Amino acid sequence: MTHSAISFEQKLASFSDHWAPKIIAQMNDYHFKLVKLQGDFVWHSHQETDEVFIVLSGEMRIAFRDGQADRQAR
Amino acid sequence: MTHSAISFEQKLASFSDHWAPKIIAQMNDYHFKLVKLQGDFVWHSHQETDEVFIVLSGEMRIAFRDGQADRQAR
Repeated sequence: MTHSAISFEQKLASFSDHWAPKIIAQMNDYHFKLVKLQGDFVWHSHQETDEVFIVLSGEMRIAFRDGQADRQAR
Repeated sequence: MTHSAISFEQKLASFSDHWAPKIIAQMNDYHFKLVKLQGDFVWHSHQETDEVFIVLSGEMRIAFRDGQADRQAR
């Protein structure tokens, strides 16, 4: 078995479409996905699970019924 | 309920000790931890779970019995 780390930069350079998550890693039964966002996405909810978003570059806003969360990265 | 995003920069600025992971978020029954590394850590294994490491800054090497994985970030 060979071991190698995953490069976000390399993976991000390999696609340009928006709102099309790519699975780049798995931990136990969880997926890690890379996605490029632009503009708005349809408002939705996940009743059975949490989701985590890490902003690597740019800005992201998540709107809730009772507030919002903003994050930006260089 | 108020919503706010977590700033890695702000959390990282709040401590300076090494090899002392800080839990900064939870998703379902998983913890997200920030840690500052310097030098080597004792070699160990986790039989019951995977672990994921994301390198935010600097370099990291994980050694396996049959290889190694290196990652670096700006």
